[in-house]
Amino acid sequence: MSKKIRIYEVGPRDGLQNEVVRLTPNLRIQFIKKLIASGVRHIETGAFVSEKWVPQMAGSAKISKKMASLKAQGNIPKDVKLCALVPNSYGMKLALASDVEEVAVFGAASESFSKMNINCSIDESLERFKQVADEAKKNKIRVRAYLSTVFGCPFEGEVSEAKVVKLTEKMLELGAYEVSLGDTIGVADPKQVERILKKIEKRISLKKIAMHFHDTRGTGLANVIMSLQMGITSFDSSLGGLGGCPYAPAATGNIATEDLVYTLHRMGYSTGIELSELIKINHWMAKHVKRSLPSKLGAAGIPKRVPVKKRKL
Amino acid sequence: MSKKIRIYEVGPRDGLQNEVVRLTPNLRIQFIKKLIASGVRHIETGAFVSEKWVPQMAGSAKISKKMASLKAQGNIPKDVKLCALVPNSYGMKLALASDVEEVAVFGAASESFSKMNINCSIDESLERFKQVADEAKKNKIRVRAYLSTVFGCPFEGEVSEAKVVKLTEKMLELGAYEVSLGDTIGVADPKQVERILKKIEKRISLKKIAMHFHDTRGTGLANVIMSLQMGITSFDSSLGGLGGCPYAPAATGNIATEDLVYTLHRMGYSTGIELSELIKINHWMAKHVKRSLPSKLGAAGIPKRVPVKKRKL
Repeated sequence: MSKKIRIYEVGPRDGLQNEVVRLTPNLRIQFIKKLIASGVRHIETGAFVSEKWVPQMAGSAKISKKMASLKAQGNIPKDVKLCALVPNSYGMKLALASDVEEVAVFGAASESFSKMNINCSIDESLERFKQVADEAKKNKIRVRAYLSTVFGCPFEGEVSEAKVVKLTEKMLELGAYEVSLGDTIGVADPKQVERILKKIEKRISLKKIAMHFHDTRGTGLANVIMSLQMGITSFDSSLGGLGGCPYAPAATGNIATEDLVYTLHRMGYSTGIELSELIKINHWMAKHVKRSLPSKLGAAGIPKRVPVKKRKL
Repeated sequence: MSKKIRIYEVGPRDGLQNEVVRLTPNLRIQFIKKLIASGVRHIETGAFVSEKWVPQMAGSAKISKKMASLKAQGNIPKDVKLCALVPNSYGMKLALASDVEEVAVFGAASESFSKMNINCSIDESLERFKQVADEAKKNKIRVRAYLSTVFGCPFEGEVSEAKVVKLTEKMLELGAYEVSLGDTIGVADPKQVERILKKIEKRISLKKIAMHFHDTRGTGLANVIMSLQMGITSFDSSLGGLGGCPYAPAATGNIATEDLVYTLHRMGYSTGIELSELIKINHWMAKHVKRSLPSKLGAAGIPKRVPVKKRKL
């Protein structure tokens, strides 16, 4: 049997929150249903954040409620895990009222990024994290954690690897079942991935680590290869490579789910996902966000044999 | 000292021959001079093929002559190696008359691709190869060889790995100093790269092998990483990722030189190339081919630290 890799789809959240075009909650529900139908089993559906700051995520409560009700009715396979991003205890209240079954919390490995992104120090963010995690525990809700700027900070440049290890440990201690290490600005290279994971595995099982690469400089899949070699089996990605900076059209966001799935399947790993369905979702989504998505598979398609006779010379 | 990786720039040939916009020989000379100034030392400058079939390569003789004269006058560093593609002995005559110092010949690992691409069987192509190589030897000209469709054929699908090994050996026997293994249609995955290189290294030193990846499905740099791990030190790439199929706008060509150089430098390898200069050439070239080039570095740039105070929230 081939080794199973877990794909954690962040398109409806990390992807769409960085698109210029805002999709209605109903369209986002359609998107999530299509992802589930293609075989995706872990999906971040939205974020309980201020609509003023992140208007793209407006209506996340509606989405969570709808998906929870579909699951309760047996209209979604039981092994589907849906998650929503929660920044603080206020967000957690909204999430609880929306029947979420898993929440994702986040913090940065760089002090300046933490201050600029969520307007608090790393220590303060861990305090918020703890409040959310405690509330989650009480309500028997799973907690996933993101650690951002692991491979570089836009303000500070290099980030302390010792700090990355320490914060990862801390997040697990506070109750996260998994920490997703983010290359937020897309600067990581495979040697750096190897170096950091070697430091982490001295103290933490890599089964508790997911990797979250952005493909800003084309190194996303190369970093995945190194992570696989190190023993990582959980990766975040977004359908079509949705996302990136909305004000820099050529910049790309997360690695594209279909490019990741193509590569993994060709290498002999299994994901449970139907690649051709992902490509259909890519083309459907491109119409709604009104641009071609950066995914390579979306453009090039699954390799097919061309009948020799039909080829024009 | 960091390990040196050889970058073989194919943008002026493999890149431009697949662009819709045709550049004049004078512009292509400017392009090559800029590449040399950035530190690139191995460049394929053009092709001695029929202008009817490949109009983009018209004027390759002029380019070769000009570059040879600049080199003779000492206006180009001595360690710069320039090469031109030569399909047969007629092309070789033209190349010799244009003062080339190195020629590249090519063949396919798949019978159908050979017939569709160069209208002859693999055996016939090796015969042409031999004629060119013999002529080159007489004239003390170096010969490089391309083997295409190594990782998959658009007509036949899978390609025999035993055949790849046999043809690589044959090309070296006939006089090539290096064989460049091409993922012509961009389907390769890192496990396949590892498997094929393991078969090759049983019979051939990997010092005589270069890898030529296309980034059609985003796996180009991932395949480079595996090749580096196997001991490969020579890679083909094209500035900006120029090329691809001119009739499929989203399809990409060779891996982009700047993305490759960025990744290699971050991993601690040296190339002798100034990355920031490559990015300038990218932006210059984009104007001339009238499109943004697919390179990620061209869009995202070299990571820079952003002053915290200046960031808008």
